[in-house]
Amino acid sequence: MDKLSVVKIGGNVIEDATALQSFLNDFAKMQGPKILVHGGGKKATKMAEKMDIPVQMVEGRRITDAQNLDIITMLYGGKINKNIVAQLQALGCNAVGLSGADGNAIQAVKRPIKNIDYGFVGDVVGVNSNFFQLLLQGGYTPVCCAITHDQKGQLLNTNADTIAATLAQSLSQYFEVSLWYCFEKQGVLEHIEDNSSVIETITPEKYRKLKTEHVIHSGMIPKIDNCLIALQNGVAEVKIGAPEMISGKTKHTTLIL
Amino acid sequence: MDKLSVVKIGGNVIEDATALQSFLNDFAKMQGPKILVHGGGKKATKMAEKMDIPVQMVEGRRITDAQNLDIITMLYGGKINKNIVAQLQALGCNAVGLSGADGNAIQAVKRPIKNIDYGFVGDVVGVNSNFFQLLLQGGYTPVCCAITHDQKGQLLNTNADTIAATLAQSLSQYFEVSLWYCFEKQGVLEHIEDNSSVIETITPEKYRKLKTEHVIHSGMIPKIDNCLIALQNGVAEVKIGAPEMISGKTKHTTLIL
Repeated sequence: MDKLSVVKIGGNVIEDATALQSFLNDFAKMQGPKILVHGGGKKATKMAEKMDIPVQMVEGRRITDAQNLDIITMLYGGKINKNIVAQLQALGCNAVGLSGADGNAIQAVKRPIKNIDYGFVGDVVGVNSNFFQLLLQGGYTPVCCAITHDQKGQLLNTNADTIAATLAQSLSQYFEVSLWYCFEKQGVLEHIEDNSSVIETITPEKYRKLKTEHVIHSGMIPKIDNCLIALQNGVAEVKIGAPEMISGKTKHTTLIL
Repeated sequence: MDKLSVVKIGGNVIEDATALQSFLNDFAKMQGPKILVHGGGKKATKMAEKMDIPVQMVEGRRITDAQNLDIITMLYGGKINKNIVAQLQALGCNAVGLSGADGNAIQAVKRPIKNIDYGFVGDVVGVNSNFFQLLLQGGYTPVCCAITHDQKGQLLNTNADTIAATLAQSLSQYFEVSLWYCFEKQGVLEHIEDNSSVIETITPEKYRKLKTEHVIHSGMIPKIDNCLIALQNGVAEVKIGAPEMISGKTKHTTLIL
């Protein structure tokens, strides 16, 4: 089975042109088939402000109305995605920018209304893995923004972490998949203030122990729970750390079963 | 040799949601491999106004500075392209939205400065026909916006008519290509005020005659000259007419050698 790397970068990399360029240099050098998934950071909020489009919040949650979806489509699907692709092309990486509508790549349903109507937000229901296979086997590198579609003509704003995990799981039937989550820390830390105290390997047993000892707590728990679900669904390993980890330059946390 | 349709739509279709939906219905039904190329119309100018970004004009020509290129990338590459793709997906057409950077699809050079510096405007120099072949053979329908790249990381604003013609010519090595230019008239007209006076077939001989008789004049001359160049470069036929022509509903002009 061939190896495949699925790498997710978030707002902190997207927001900083120097950090993005440095990451893309490293990403272009990664060997073997690979997929990049990117979020959009705070750029959408800033653009909404500039265009006098109100950002609706309900119970602390951001609502994606039609105008904000347009901004997300323009920024994530247009400006950010196409500029990443052009930069990767310059680095010799044959990137192809995708939303979930392109090639029916990632199918979703509009989130059902329970207590909150999130607006045009999508929950992923399927992946066209044949399409990714076609591109990867052709030597192309998919670059996915966090937009999906409902197959009825509606684009939907979707969580980039979820997209990365879903792609990694779906493609595990064809590849030995490593899922890389780049974030602002070096990994899961033994001591939260000490960026060098990276816990290099976490298994489900060790995770239970670290939770009991309160080393892992609060926001890190759902993150790791999601990583373990990905592993249980066939992903070979999940890596959490700073963007530089993809070049092997920095320590990071590897989750395995 | 398989047949391939390359269809170009311009601003008049993009600007009008009803006209666009009607066109996409027809386009989705077109048999065989096909490619859609779309312009952006006046939407970019309107958005620049809304965002207080000045539109620079030099000698009546529009200049694409960095801010206007961003707007074009957001609108043409993002909002317009992704919404067309999502609508085609809903109609059962497996569309894939592309800029020229995606898959290194369409390579260009920044237009050299002679009398006017057009800014980030690209003149097409090459097409990655392997990439289009891969998608078409896989059953996918490329939907191209009018953005190219210079392979050094720079996106470039490019004329949609030129992109359509270049794609049609490049893919003529693999397909018997029909190039369809949709515009606001029913075709080349015998009498400019009478939309029913469509000249149904034009050969180079007939074109010379029509020019001598001043039936074809002014703006139509460079348009037809470009069509004849496409034919000389291997395109099987060029069709000019209203968007409805693609369904066979309306008369139109066919140019052949």
